[in-house]
Amino acid sequence: MLIVMDHQASAAQVDDVVAAVEKRGFTAKPIQGGDRVSIGVLYNQGAVEAAPFLCMPGVKEIIPVTRPYKQVSREFKPEDTIIRIGGVTIGEGHLNIMAGPCAIESEAQALTIAGHVKEAGAHIFRGGAFKPRTSPYSFQGMGLEGLKILAQVRDKTGLPVITEVMDVETFADVEAYADIIQIGTRNMQNFSLLKKAGRSRKPVFLKRGMSATLDEWLMAAEYILEGGNHQVILCERGVRTFVRHSRNTLDLSAVPVVRKESHLPIIVDPSHAAGRREQVLPLARAAVAAGAHGLMVEVHHEPANAASDGAQSLYPEQFAGLCREVSSIYGILNNQELQPERKNRADADR
Amino acid sequence: MLIVMDHQASAAQVDDVVAAVEKRGFTAKPIQGGDRVSIGVLYNQGAVEAAPFLCMPGVKEIIPVTRPYKQVSREFKPEDTIIRIGGVTIGEGHLNIMAGPCAIESEAQALTIAGHVKEAGAHIFRGGAFKPRTSPYSFQGMGLEGLKILAQVRDKTGLPVITEVMDVETFADVEAYADIIQIGTRNMQNFSLLKKAGRSRKPVFLKRGMSATLDEWLMAAEYILEGGNHQVILCERGVRTFVRHSRNTLDLSAVPVVRKESHLPIIVDPSHAAGRREQVLPLARAAVAAGAHGLMVEVHHEPANAASDGAQSLYPEQFAGLCREVSSIYGILNNQELQPERKNRADADR
Amino acid sequence: MLIVMDHQASAAQVDDVVAAVEKRGFTAKPIQGGDRVSIGVLYNQGAVEAAPFLCMPGVKEIIPVTRPYKQVSREFKPEDTIIRIGGVTIGEGHLNIMAGPCAIESEAQALTIAGHVKEAGAHIFRGGAFKPRTSPYSFQGMGLEGLKILAQVRDKTGLPVITEVMDVETFADVEAYADIIQIGTRNMQNFSLLKKAGRSRKPVFLKRGMSATLDEWLMAAEYILEGGNHQVILCERGVRTFVRHSRNTLDLSAVPVVRKESHLPIIVDPSHAAGRREQVLPLARAAVAAGAHGLMVEVHHEPANAASDGAQSLYPEQFAGLCREVSSIYGILNNQELQPERKNRADADR
Amino acid sequence: MLIVMDHQASAAQVDDVVAAVEKRGFTAKPIQGGDRVSIGVLYNQGAVEAAPFLCMPGVKEIIPVTRPYKQVSREFKPEDTIIRIGGVTIGEGHLNIMAGPCAIESEAQALTIAGHVKEAGAHIFRGGAFKPRTSPYSFQGMGLEGLKILAQVRDKTGLPVITEVMDVETFADVEAYADIIQIGTRNMQNFSLLKKAGRSRKPVFLKRGMSATLDEWLMAAEYILEGGNHQVILCERGVRTFVRHSRNTLDLSAVPVVRKESHLPIIVDPSHAAGRREQVLPLARAAVAAGAHGLMVEVHHEPANAASDGAQSLYPEQFAGLCREVSSIYGILNNQELQPERKNRADADR
Repeated sequence: MLIVMDHQASAAQVDDVVAAVEKRGFTAKPIQGGDRVSIGVLYNQGAVEAAPFLCMPGVKEIIPVTRPYKQVSREFKPEDTIIRIGGVTIGEGHLNIMAGPCAIESEAQALTIAGHVKEAGAHIFRGGAFKPRTSPYSFQGMGLEGLKILAQVRDKTGLPVITEVMDVETFADVEAYADIIQIGTRNMQNFSLLKKAGRSRKPVFLKRGMSATLDEWLMAAEYILEGGNHQVILCERGVRTFVRHSRNTLDLSAVPVVRKESHLPIIVDPSHAAGRREQVLPLARAAVAAGAHGLMVEVHHEPANAASDGAQSLYPEQFAGLCREVSSIYGILNNQELQPERKNRADADR
Repeated sequence: MLIVMDHQASAAQVDDVVAAVEKRGFTAKPIQGGDRVSIGVLYNQGAVEAAPFLCMPGVKEIIPVTRPYKQVSREFKPEDTIIRIGGVTIGEGHLNIMAGPCAIESEAQALTIAGHVKEAGAHIFRGGAFKPRTSPYSFQGMGLEGLKILAQVRDKTGLPVITEVMDVETFADVEAYADIIQIGTRNMQNFSLLKKAGRSRKPVFLKRGMSATLDEWLMAAEYILEGGNHQVILCERGVRTFVRHSRNTLDLSAVPVVRKESHLPIIVDPSHAAGRREQVLPLARAAVAAGAHGLMVEVHHEPANAASDGAQSLYPEQFAGLCREVSSIYGILNNQELQPERKNRADADR
Repeated sequence: MLIVMDHQASAAQVDDVVAAVEKRGFTAKPIQGGDRVSIGVLYNQGAVEAAPFLCMPGVKEIIPVTRPYKQVSREFKPEDTIIRIGGVTIGEGHLNIMAGPCAIESEAQALTIAGHVKEAGAHIFRGGAFKPRTSPYSFQGMGLEGLKILAQVRDKTGLPVITEVMDVETFADVEAYADIIQIGTRNMQNFSLLKKAGRSRKPVFLKRGMSATLDEWLMAAEYILEGGNHQVILCERGVRTFVRHSRNTLDLSAVPVVRKESHLPIIVDPSHAAGRREQVLPLARAAVAAGAHGLMVEVHHEPANAASDGAQSLYPEQFAGLCREVSSIYGILNNQELQPERKNRADADR
Repeated sequence: MLIVMDHQASAAQVDDVVAAVEKRGFTAKPIQGGDRVSIGVLYNQGAVEAAPFLCMPGVKEIIPVTRPYKQVSREFKPEDTIIRIGGVTIGEGHLNIMAGPCAIESEAQALTIAGHVKEAGAHIFRGGAFKPRTSPYSFQGMGLEGLKILAQVRDKTGLPVITEVMDVETFADVEAYADIIQIGTRNMQNFSLLKKAGRSRKPVFLKRGMSATLDEWLMAAEYILEGGNHQVILCERGVRTFVRHSRNTLDLSAVPVVRKESHLPIIVDPSHAAGRREQVLPLARAAVAAGAHGLMVEVHHEPANAASDGAQSLYPEQFAGLCREVSSIYGILNNQELQPERKNRADADR
């Protein structure tokens, strides 16, 4: 942390700040510049609270230097985190496609769609049993019944299943039935839920909050790792901006930055970013081209009758085309002949 | 809802959309314009899902017309909601000031600050017992112990107390000790918590989400009203934008819009919007001038040693100045001589 | 346009609005819904000003239906606009790479970089002679001298050149030397400059404004087409959001939406979106995968000594890798065997 | 500037960065922290370009410390800038109201509105002769004819006039007729226009760009001061955010920050922020309560027939109410009895 003093700050004020830093057990190093003094705060473990110093006379501003996250950072753990569920592997060196309907609506619907996405090449089946809905009057999901249908899908297709958990009350049920537990955008900073997920042994799929900075998102993951669960998958799904031609704005620069800053896998959800079927395919290709470790895609065989998110759900044949296209792009990126000079893709982008 | 057709849409495509609308029990009314047909969807109760129609051939876009909220709207209930807690009244015709530390740190700290804010004119004491923190390594609040200190503050000062609830597990405890239950920004769309709050008999203070639209915020309140609890107070606390000179950007246009669209009281929190002490006073004055029904302000007698949010906490004497200034401004706005032509302030701004 | 009335609006108020619409020469069609009347405004040419109606008693809100742009729209001209400059073709069916330094610094610098980018496969050379800089104390470009160097680059390499014009005063000079005239982000709504560009016969490269909606951007292009110049190339370069890990947030959903709404080519500039060299390659691949007709990329052989934007400039060998990767991705997308069921890529994404 | 090294950076890499800093004539000071080295860059005049260092091996990130602006800063010139035009004074200690129609439409219209706003208490008359319009098909202003009408308004009412200049070509005309030259939002970074304004002797009214940071806005003003014209008035008019219930989001925290960072006067335009008449009065009151030195407000006697911006224009009687209310609020804030302990308002908010 760097404490920048006003250019008229007195020597006594500088001394007071130095004393305050050292009182907290850190080392303070005043640096004389051309027109002002700055004070470096050194030998701290993790981020230091800026507030106490910001309050002091003569202080102009506080500039954080150290990143707040620790266990999620690549500096802390240089090797990529790889997650294995049954025969499926998620992380560096793999392209993972999770697909299925927004919400489980019936056994028939789930099995029909699961059949389609498995045939097209999906590795994991997604489907919501507990649905976070903006309106109390909208369909809220089938609940426990939906979880049981997910288990049947796994039994019949062999695909691992992922579904969203909305609260601590239903956590045990979701944990019992799901292979991967999803924490949704609106709950990214539901810290009680994050702590609960930290005590689970199932992998957690953590969607980025609607307006979360990268630091906030990684700190939410840090809650889970700190709790003891190191199997976290990050998911970029678009952020809220002034833009109106898509539901959210997909922030693909998050992909290389997460890959550089963290060892955790990063998946992209183009469906929620787009909000309109016709943008999903281009954004899915873009995500894989940007280096994502996988995709989460909404698919429905009858989108016009979907209980939710029908407008952004792909038809099964569109999804099959998506799988072909993104696999080809992924192949290109990992073609050793193309980049003879590089050991692997991960290095190439860092 | 209005379904806009492509300008090359065929008559058969128009007929199909009309049939699909009527199949769902609504009335469809095709409207022939200069270069395209639009189809009005009529006699629906509440918002209609756009997705099923967006999927159909020949459809260019869907334009919502009806607002999604119902019970929170002024069209549904024209009279202002007034909330009474002990001797305190919140809502139209009153200016309500809630103040106290970000977090309860000890009995002595709470009582000291409560004494200051009561003397300055605050009506309600605020203080966090359960704290949502970005980092798992930050102080997480005193929990139940903090709730008990709040009860002592109420006993000794006579001020009602407000504190944040973070999850369903600790809801009963918070409900037992608090006079007003706060749901924080990060939990605005924690629907399980909203449903729980809907079954409480205590008033709920609902902060706007960091990037929530007005519709989403009012729909979150709708969850609580739909659950049976009609005592909801809305709180604008700044939204996330590209701006970096304040912690958030205070959206004061939300004040007149909420007052027009809803019957619920609207309070402003300038402390979290500002993030820096020096901006709190100007924003507090602005909020009252914009027509807010009150303020929530962070105050600490030793901000340099505050466990959280010290940088934005006012010193007691600054808070006293704030109370004097906003009371004067509120007096001006409600001075009948100034606006002889208007019955009251509420009408004047609508 | 749809005029939505309050649910208590009187019949007389509805009649007044109908009369006001018809007085302006349009057709008004009242539509009776369940709890309110809406009035369709029909047979208008282009967008109708909402303001006159928004003022009238009983009106709740105005909902635009027709898009404001005309000549830039695909509804107006269904065939893709293809632009030819010397041997280079820009538009559907081609992948076009424009590369070079942010600013022309010297003849030697320009020729060195031009040699590198030509060898790597770039089709057009970029370089700024007039530089828009946030600070008056920063290097402002070489001006006319820089334009002359660009002409030399064209003579010696055969590459067409693109450079930015900053004002009407220097327009004739830029027009005389450049093959493509660039209008920058900060000038997207410099309407005097747009009108001037509309009278030019050289193609215009129009960058999206930092916070421009798609409608505003297309309307800026409409100014140029309306002036008589139909050779416009659009360039997405990232928009301003709350995100801090990249200089701007690249809005790739703009690519499919522009391709659907307009017949103009759409190029992506990953360098200004990223702001950091390490994000440029992933974003470049993503842009091509999303369907962009080309890229504009900053390249410098000595970024550490670049007069501007060095941090986001690629080294020549990185740029060569970029060209190989995006060409492979483009090849995949246009491989007929992969999508036997589709006539061409443009159809596939619409 | 602070150069933060990777935690694995070698001593040789640190030495290279130190050498690169010193080669540019600055002083480099390595600071050893707990897990990494940072290098302070000292004795620089103004901001240092980060790019050259960001490129170097072992560098993790660059953190700017010094603010980029100089002449506009209060550190450079502590006394408030006061601007006098005829009998009107703008700046600290004065509340200045500028009002009039969006566009000059005719002599009769201008004189009628000028009469109204003068009577209500406005100090300066505003009206557009050259209008920046999103659409080429919208009314573009009366041009020179409009300027002549403004001159007549000044002659007949005695009010100084302010009007927008759109380009260098028409600058001399606008300068000849106007008392204050307005540079609009879309031209905030039209650097050619800013340089031209820097050579004028008339005061310049500089609106904040739609998504400009405070630094960018102050740097735009720096261009004008650097050119030799020290009479600059800043105007906050709302920024672009995700919010949809107002045309823009008024950023009132900019008021105290500009007052602290700069000596230039800061005016607020609530009309363009609101976009809807009913929000203008609350936002105007809020702006004055936040400490603005004045307001710019759109007024029209027949908004339903206004050539532009009718929806946000106040009726004359609404404007008269606005003047009464903001004057009362301004009186409160500058009432010495209320703040006996402070010399003046400016100090109180800093």
